[in-house]
Amino acid sequence: MGVQAIPVTRSWSTRHAEKKRRIEAVRSWMDGPILQADRILDAMHLLIQAGDRIVIEGDNQKQADFLSRSLAKADPKKLHDLHLIISSISRPEHLTLFELGIAKKIDFAFAALGLRVAQLLEDGVLEIGAIHTYVELYARLFLDLTPNVVLVCAEEADKGGNLYTGPNTEDTPVIVESAAFHDGIVIVQVNRIVDKLPRVDIPSSWIDVVVESDRPYAIEPLFTRDPRKITDLQILMGMMVIRGVYERHQVHSLNHGIGFATAAIELLLPTYGESLGLSGKICEHWAINPHPTLIPAIESGWIKTIHCFGSEVGMSDYIRARPDIFFNGSDGSMRSNRVLCQLVGQYAIDAFIGSTLQLDGDANSSTVTAGRITGHGGAANMGHDPHGRRHASPAWLDLKTDPSPMVRGRKIVVQAVETFVKGDTPAFVETLDAVQVGRKAGMPIAPVMIYGEDVSHVVTEEGIAYLYKTEGIEERRRAIAAVAGISPIGLRAKPEETAALRRRGIVAYPEDIGVQRLSAKRSLLAARSMEDLVAWSGDLYKPPARFRSW
Amino acid sequence: MGVQAIPVTRSWSTRHAEKKRRIEAVRSWMDGPILQADRILDAMHLLIQAGDRIVIEGDNQKQADFLSRSLAKADPKKLHDLHLIISSISRPEHLTLFELGIAKKIDFAFAALGLRVAQLLEDGVLEIGAIHTYVELYARLFLDLTPNVVLVCAEEADKGGNLYTGPNTEDTPVIVESAAFHDGIVIVQVNRIVDKLPRVDIPSSWIDVVVESDRPYAIEPLFTRDPRKITDLQILMGMMVIRGVYERHQVHSLNHGIGFATAAIELLLPTYGESLGLSGKICEHWAINPHPTLIPAIESGWIKTIHCFGSEVGMSDYIRARPDIFFNGSDGSMRSNRVLCQLVGQYAIDAFIGSTLQLDGDANSSTVTAGRITGHGGAANMGHDPHGRRHASPAWLDLKTDPSPMVRGRKIVVQAVETFVKGDTPAFVETLDAVQVGRKAGMPIAPVMIYGEDVSHVVTEEGIAYLYKTEGIEERRRAIAAVAGISPIGLRAKPEETAALRRRGIVAYPEDIGVQRLSAKRSLLAARSMEDLVAWSGDLYKPPARFRSW
Repeated sequence: MGVQAIPVTRSWSTRHAEKKRRIEAVRSWMDGPILQADRILDAMHLLIQAGDRIVIEGDNQKQADFLSRSLAKADPKKLHDLHLIISSISRPEHLTLFELGIAKKIDFAFAALGLRVAQLLEDGVLEIGAIHTYVELYARLFLDLTPNVVLVCAEEADKGGNLYTGPNTEDTPVIVESAAFHDGIVIVQVNRIVDKLPRVDIPSSWIDVVVESDRPYAIEPLFTRDPRKITDLQILMGMMVIRGVYERHQVHSLNHGIGFATAAIELLLPTYGESLGLSGKICEHWAINPHPTLIPAIESGWIKTIHCFGSEVGMSDYIRARPDIFFNGSDGSMRSNRVLCQLVGQYAIDAFIGSTLQLDGDANSSTVTAGRITGHGGAANMGHDPHGRRHASPAWLDLKTDPSPMVRGRKIVVQAVETFVKGDTPAFVETLDAVQVGRKAGMPIAPVMIYGEDVSHVVTEEGIAYLYKTEGIEERRRAIAAVAGISPIGLRAKPEETAALRRRGIVAYPEDIGVQRLSAKRSLLAARSMEDLVAWSGDLYKPPARFRSW
Repeated sequence: MGVQAIPVTRSWSTRHAEKKRRIEAVRSWMDGPILQADRILDAMHLLIQAGDRIVIEGDNQKQADFLSRSLAKADPKKLHDLHLIISSISRPEHLTLFELGIAKKIDFAFAALGLRVAQLLEDGVLEIGAIHTYVELYARLFLDLTPNVVLVCAEEADKGGNLYTGPNTEDTPVIVESAAFHDGIVIVQVNRIVDKLPRVDIPSSWIDVVVESDRPYAIEPLFTRDPRKITDLQILMGMMVIRGVYERHQVHSLNHGIGFATAAIELLLPTYGESLGLSGKICEHWAINPHPTLIPAIESGWIKTIHCFGSEVGMSDYIRARPDIFFNGSDGSMRSNRVLCQLVGQYAIDAFIGSTLQLDGDANSSTVTAGRITGHGGAANMGHDPHGRRHASPAWLDLKTDPSPMVRGRKIVVQAVETFVKGDTPAFVETLDAVQVGRKAGMPIAPVMIYGEDVSHVVTEEGIAYLYKTEGIEERRRAIAAVAGISPIGLRAKPEETAALRRRGIVAYPEDIGVQRLSAKRSLLAARSMEDLVAWSGDLYKPPARFRSW
């Protein structure tokens, strides 16, 4: 052997031995992998240890809330200083764990409860490892954040421990894989234990403990937008996007962030889009949650495939009846998969369009507002130009502005934003609130959602800025100002400069691309209410009660 | 409903019905999901149809070769014009399918048989859809390249159709998921049908047809490098990387491309790295195939975790005996996963280091050489700075050169290349061969592997160019020239400019970072032969015969 080589004498299966020891300690309460539900707290005291790194499944949508509520009842003298890894901080008890001292450190991707996170951080009750996008956080589960225990949820288990996760599969497979294949302990809450599953989504070889929850896992209808609330301005922006982005660049595949502006686009395809003869030419393939506002475009034959990050409350029956469109299994129900859908959204689609709360003069954006640490979720992954992409598509090539074969194409990343939020708060600002929030929280860099350099188009009710065509930072800023209305950024625009940008096709106002402002009316929407969506679906879509007025 | 809304009357389950029809046609040759092996060709004629889009599992390592060999025996009058999707074109019969007219179009990521691909393309026998990286190709399976049939391979199946894919899981789960959840047909060749699997990697609900192959699936030991062939120059470069990149930036997590330069680094950690006191400070977490040359660093306690894209021939027993390091399942054997490991390599690691065959004066690189269409594989994904990343690490922040909170950190992307390939062919060239190959093949852009703008460091036997520190393209070019030796690019360097770059820390020669050229000797390697690696492993590593001299 070589010089200075010092082989280490050690056990190489410490994790395996420790897992075995813990599981043995709870064996008497188990029948195969099934744990008696009333023993969950006792079992947690034995399966988890102080200082452990644990994942609680708190996805963008579904929540392993029986397990998180149980953990919040643990004895902090026994269970303390846990390092919590969670995609989305969205249940009150996630933060109660910190107030009680059960958990100390957190790594996360998104915080619905961002105000309380900021307060706990300031009080020194909670320590942040880092704030990630979803896929970054999952990636670290296989690198430097390998978990000791994961707490996840599924629809059903059979008595052997096989799982059916169904339409809302979301993040469960990747979380379970990280633990099952590195001697972590996998604890699953299921809504029901049954004799036979519709299909197996996760095999029992990967599962240690199954427990039937007191009630079905919590889930929010995050992607439902009532068409009633779509405004004429959002319809105008939607028309501009269809005309000036989707038609212009031949956008065949895409992702829409959630919001009323994108809902408007979805509802304009079968009407305004149809009138332009664009069916079959744009918007055929989607990586997106099953937005109910997609129903009319599906029913009108616009959409060929939809792959989903998660599902959406009320959409299950409709999805089951449209297997040519969605990714359904042999049992007929959908399987979503956030990791794979993020992969599609990053590497395969032509265009991403999202909204934001604030945009600065360089088109950097953030949803962070004063005192609130919200995190990044998944938009940053969709909303950047992936330099690792190597295959071309017509849209990708259409953004190539240099004929050299050494210059790549580019992903279309659109920020669609009204110049003012709620009437009097400008969306275009000198400095993002994120800068101040990041500084106060001691973050090494500001929590920017999408960087201006990755944005190819900004769309407002004023017009479209084709940023990918600009040369140099100054021209870029002028193009942004030209569509920023009377916001502080917009007031920087000089009429003669804007006129020149319009002549060169770097800025387009509605009339420049044949969009008539006066025709931007709600009557253009293929559905104008939740009832309309239900009718389009042939009564297969079942909106949650809060969205029903009938 | 809204105006101009035209609901379509159609069947929404055409794929489901078609799949059912085809499966019924072969039912009489099946026992549950198990197909009689001698019926495979007959079954293919019924399960596949002319014009179908099919995936053949041809991974970076394992190959569904029983199925590809069988398909190549099909009757081109019945089966023709298939659209083939394949990660790696590496078996002769993959291309025979085109010569026989069974297949017409191909979408792929890598071509080991790049010369023949180029010839068939020129002859009009083969039509290329696009050339991808691995993850892009998988992504499109869920978007616009949804397959009708997938042909994959696994180690074992049970009689119900559950699969054990074991250490070389690689791409099988993602390929199967794309078909199983969109009414594609999943056909699996397995080495053995057994009563009980060690564990289930893919559940039977996802599988349609299982067939026992005539011999175990083909697999190549792609990641094995014999330490005997490591040269003093590669050792010098390895020392520079350890000193000038890993120590300098505190690289805790990383990926190594394959090659002798990176193998040298791996074998220097327990010797040179140890002498610098760096154990526990660098190179703890890896996203990498299980390179045998990692064994000494593992045994010396340098490495905490390794997550793998695939496995490596001969490493199974060793991996099984080191569960604290690798990702092994409840049965003790590893599960690799290319999609997840790519995710780790893209979003979670501090550094990627790879070699290349050609680098131009802007640090663009390619492995494409004259007349050979090789594709991209996975390096482009590891080897770019992902703009979607939002969490910080010390190394990532160390490359931030602007104190503004609006400026991100950066991934370390190192190109390690000797200035001359095989003695007299310069690695640094005026124009990449890829430009000419791309033009001849009618590609919209040149097949560049890694773009210069994403490269943070270039390391040669001359020194290190810290490109991330340069200001402007001219200074960047000067820094590259300064380490390019007497290649055409290197000859552009002016001594006074290089001296200035060294003073400013933009270029470092070995002596600038305390690396003594004379100490770069093979005696520094922790293992100098395959026998040494076997000894380090306690005889657990079993090299393939071609690597054995004993």
